Amino acid sequence: MQQSTLRILKIGGAILDHLEAFESVCQQFANWAHPKILVHGGGGRASQLLEQLNIVPQMHSGRRITDDDTLEVVTMVYAGLLNKKVVGHLQSLGCDALGLSGADLDSIRAHKRVVKDVDYGWAGDIDTINTPTLSALLSLNIVPVFCAITHNGNGQLLNTNADTIAATLGTAFADHYEVELHYCFDRPGVLLDKNDDDSVISELTHQVYEDYKNQGIIEDGMLPKLSNAFDSLSQGVKAVHLGGAFNLGKGTIIK
Amino acid sequence: MQQSTLRILKIGGAILDHLEAFESVCQQFANWAHPKILVHGGGGRASQLLEQLNIVPQMHSGRRITDDDTLEVVTMVYAGLLNKKVVGHLQSLGCDALGLSGADLDSIRAHKRVVKDVDYGWAGDIDTINTPTLSALLSLNIVPVFCAITHNGNGQLLNTNADTIAATLGTAFADHYEVELHYCFDRPGVLLDKNDDDSVISELTHQVYEDYKNQGIIEDGMLPKLSNAFDSLSQGVKAVHLGGAFNLGKGTIIK
Repeated sequence: MQQSTLRILKIGGAILDHLEAFESVCQQFANWAHPKILVHGGGGRASQLLEQLNIVPQMHSGRRITDDDTLEVVTMVYAGLLNKKVVGHLQSLGCDALGLSGADLDSIRAHKRVVKDVDYGWAGDIDTINTPTLSALLSLNIVPVFCAITHNGNGQLLNTNADTIAATLGTAFADHYEVELHYCFDRPGVLLDKNDDDSVISELTHQVYEDYKNQGIIEDGMLPKLSNAFDSLSQGVKAVHLGGAFNLGKGTIIK
Repeated sequence: MQQSTLRILKIGGAILDHLEAFESVCQQFANWAHPKILVHGGGGRASQLLEQLNIVPQMHSGRRITDDDTLEVVTMVYAGLLNKKVVGHLQSLGCDALGLSGADLDSIRAHKRVVKDVDYGWAGDIDTINTPTLSALLSLNIVPVFCAITHNGNGQLLNTNADTIAATLGTAFADHYEVELHYCFDRPGVLLDKNDDDSVISELTHQVYEDYKNQGIIEDGMLPKLSNAFDSLSQGVKAVHLGGAFNLGKGTIIK
């Protein structure tokens, strides 16, 4: 049986802070066929509010350490300010958006990250995606818009990386749909030369990726995204797109 | 045909700030039969964050004047911090809560309050409740949890009084359900003597209300709530309950 395509778009915080990029992405996303899901980050804005409140952002290896105060701030910024900005704008474009944290409808359940060397505080690693409930929403042409907040089922909210949420949604739905994952950020794609936006690698296979990585061609910041992309493919996702805001579906494709 | 009962509970910000009251209300609400809707305020916490950010809260006749910065703050606090706190806690009690602003699923559409003597800024007066979509959620035993944010359908979020949201939901559903409105706040009910929590008026009719009001027996702060309650009854709501957190359904009943 031919499966229908589910497109999952993850937009980074930088897109949300840039009005023209934000509006362009939303318009393109609104034009996409159903079913579709949007996941948004928002780390920059959270850091800004933490600073305004004199809470020093604590990071370890690019991941936020989430103490009680920080959890309150990210819940406010991700689930409140940014999620409703995205939902309100999509609604204005005729896209029937529904903002969700993982707590809403018990849609994403996670557990506090196990402490090894570092205690990440209220950082959550995902256990389950509530695919029956989300499928019911998708079948009604409702468009879930996820922020990067999950919960543990016992009343504790958790801060979960938005890239990871997108990837986990992708693999959770891979049995039911042909899943395309789209990561949209402030570059037009994976670049051969990080100083040249025209050097987009249009297609990457795992072998080419390994070669480029070993040659040090791909910049460090891109490596986790690419590593996650290949993990998603190995778990049933059909294609991963990495690119900029103004041309969704272009940029770099990995399949 | 016997209509089923829809219970709508509005909890004030004071309840959310008081852990014991909050947990008690949530437990009682979780035990209620379906269908049910929760609406929450949160003004105190918003004022606190405004102060931390050196934004002076502006009020006029007990209503907040919502400038751009204030709208961002109330969106963060109402739709983010408090809404997810309520949703996460209800989920831990087995209640399938779904947090909503009026923008989500276009559930409550409003317009910027028309300027007469005072410009209330981004204060929204409600135009329409999306009863078909909300009914579909209710029929799935999903429990909508509304914060006091609405939208105008053109991407503008608006700040709308939570009491008003509860009342408007009540009248919007009055044709389909026997609607009970429950307003829960930091008093055990309408009091004959504001200094005596044992002086709860157990039942109020419109005539008795008018008499008490004319005699100055009912405290000023309670008058708008009661006026709204009688308006709701005149628009098809079956009963309005006003009371405290620890004994929902007791307190003062108006029908």
